[in-house]
Amino acid sequence: MPASPIRKLVPYAEAAKKRGVKIYHLNIGQPDIETPKEMLDAVRKSDFKILEYSHSAGNESYRQKLVKYYQSVNIHVHYNDIIITTGGSEAILFGFMSCLDAGDEVIIPEPFYANYNGFAVAADVNVKPVTSSITTGFALPPIEDFEKCITKKTKAILICNPNNPTGYLYSKEEMQTLRAIVKKHNLYLFSDEAYREFCYEGEHCSAMHLTDVDDHVVMMDTISKRYSACGARIGALVTKNKKVIETALKFAQARLSPPSFGQIAGEAAIDLPVDYFAETKKEYQKRRDLIVARLNNIPGVFCPKPGGAFYAMASLPVDDADMFCQWLLESFNYKKETIMLAPASGFYSTPQLGKNEVRLAYVLNTEAINKAMDCLEKALFIYPGKMIQPGKTLSASYSH
Amino acid sequence: MPASPIRKLVPYAEAAKKRGVKIYHLNIGQPDIETPKEMLDAVRKSDFKILEYSHSAGNESYRQKLVKYYQSVNIHVHYNDIIITTGGSEAILFGFMSCLDAGDEVIIPEPFYANYNGFAVAADVNVKPVTSSITTGFALPPIEDFEKCITKKTKAILICNPNNPTGYLYSKEEMQTLRAIVKKHNLYLFSDEAYREFCYEGEHCSAMHLTDVDDHVVMMDTISKRYSACGARIGALVTKNKKVIETALKFAQARLSPPSFGQIAGEAAIDLPVDYFAETKKEYQKRRDLIVARLNNIPGVFCPKPGGAFYAMASLPVDDADMFCQWLLESFNYKKETIMLAPASGFYSTPQLGKNEVRLAYVLNTEAINKAMDCLEKALFIYPGKMIQPGKTLSASYSH
Repeated sequence: MPASPIRKLVPYAEAAKKRGVKIYHLNIGQPDIETPKEMLDAVRKSDFKILEYSHSAGNESYRQKLVKYYQSVNIHVHYNDIIITTGGSEAILFGFMSCLDAGDEVIIPEPFYANYNGFAVAADVNVKPVTSSITTGFALPPIEDFEKCITKKTKAILICNPNNPTGYLYSKEEMQTLRAIVKKHNLYLFSDEAYREFCYEGEHCSAMHLTDVDDHVVMMDTISKRYSACGARIGALVTKNKKVIETALKFAQARLSPPSFGQIAGEAAIDLPVDYFAETKKEYQKRRDLIVARLNNIPGVFCPKPGGAFYAMASLPVDDADMFCQWLLESFNYKKETIMLAPASGFYSTPQLGKNEVRLAYVLNTEAINKAMDCLEKALFIYPGKMIQPGKTLSASYSH
Repeated sequence: MPASPIRKLVPYAEAAKKRGVKIYHLNIGQPDIETPKEMLDAVRKSDFKILEYSHSAGNESYRQKLVKYYQSVNIHVHYNDIIITTGGSEAILFGFMSCLDAGDEVIIPEPFYANYNGFAVAADVNVKPVTSSITTGFALPPIEDFEKCITKKTKAILICNPNNPTGYLYSKEEMQTLRAIVKKHNLYLFSDEAYREFCYEGEHCSAMHLTDVDDHVVMMDTISKRYSACGARIGALVTKNKKVIETALKFAQARLSPPSFGQIAGEAAIDLPVDYFAETKKEYQKRRDLIVARLNNIPGVFCPKPGGAFYAMASLPVDDADMFCQWLLESFNYKKETIMLAPASGFYSTPQLGKNEVRLAYVLNTEAINKAMDCLEKALFIYPGKMIQPGKTLSASYSH
């Protein structure tokens, strides 16, 4: 089992805090947005006497309400097409375990959400990466690159749309390309749509919008990011493929039921005012515009403008982003402050890729983002491992 | 993935309810005991604004309090020896995945909790049953039976103590036998102690009480039954084996965190009055004494007195308990009432075993248990598949 690459810097962050250094956490996707009061109140005002198991597929009342939510985003499903999971994490695990046998392969465009590796190990399946590049803003790699990877063992393609870690929003055309590949090679299309509501450039095209691939598409969803309710541990596996639902339900029955309190919060979310997302989206968009502008203003930094989610990937003028991120915590501060970033190497499956890239989660308010960017700017100015040209490093004369 | 054997009767139960028949559910381990108000109130009075991820191993404050709870049952651990899991289910899954490779074997005395099969499939490990018998009240099988099963692939023995489905409470001597086996053959001892607080004949001997096997013992725990809080989905994996904790933590990190609300409820449970369990235990014991007496009073029925948990196994004078349980729902009622039982065949891994046995969960009050036993008595009197002597069936002249 691989360790989470984002977690390995934690001891350095803890040591920095002990030295009295304030850290701007741009390294994790824990939003600072308040969870809607209506959701928390629903839990707080609950009045049952026994905290019972729910249905293994989740409360029917919740699944029926989710049908309405999905209708609002033009996804038309029956409540029996939905299994409520313990976070989006479990939806991904159930998808792997229900659709792939041990030793089977799933193709994932890299960079990708690092925990997919963990679920692949748990399900004993192999990840085959198809590389996307920062130079195209992490657009879908060409269809030939996918087809080169397809073997007899290939059973699925997994995308995250909009993407974590790149923020890239797949276009309708790209989704049609994926549709063609999965139909031609008879593969599953796993679509992690955790960030569906946060699209800033154009409409979200769900895998569930694709026609005539009902048996291929398995959508993984979660309320964690949508409503800033990560601790609820409520997600969903959604598919019209009856055999997949039937198999996933057996995994769901083995673990008995998803969390009851979280389901109450999730059900209350469906009744939020229709303009709820508009406000959150506006806030994230403001932050995105700020962080992308600040990043591209730093000499040697390049950050393509992401179309969705709340992540941006940037290339930095450093020889090794892992070292740089550790140095930021261990040896740097500006006015007793520093930043924590996620080195991109952990999001690539192919060794050596992304070595000068980092992921930034814009989950802090604009004031904090500005201060964090001040830190980054100063840090890059003095960093001993700085590169003035690709491939060349400044001599490490500076020691903090 | 195998279907849960307990769930397959559900459609018959639903049909019976639609016909207006009341069903006494002795088939599942969902207690009717109220969840302590203090636990629910802790959740209802919580006042945070963001429902955040917790630490992947669970909130430190909760783990520190759990250390105190474990001290009260003579189990001495550090909070870093504990990973909070999403129900006991996840603790079992993490145990399998952290300690066994694909294709490895785990020995489990049968009959056993049917969902172990599901977790074994999920972790790609093989279950090797060692048969225990109703004639000895499901005592631990002789050590020779275990040793016969041990191969190069064997990595662990899993017990549930007190046992689900048999209610059997392993004695100190039996635990010492297990200690000797795991030491001799260098195996893990997985100990599912979900029902620890419900022991009616003697003291509970935890696997964590065994000396000099710290690296072998992995305890799986849950608050589901202890506090009648099944819907919280809060359990724990506990071990002093640092490598196992380190690996299990990686699986925990991949799925991010256990449910936040459930952890609040779990933490509040530690502050319950010290006599909390005494009352619940007294209630369960009263039910156990009643159900065992009523069962043994029915001609042809045998039910050994279980020492713990809230389950009893009984052999019935029928040719096929699966058919009988279905018939109870489909074709029988007494005063518009019937009972739902769990056929034991689903708890045995060896085919054909337990064909005339059922599991009864005494999770209903004594009045309901009496009425349920009235139903069973009447049903067995008229059941067409009744056996008067072992191996002989009454002619099926009666048709309801």
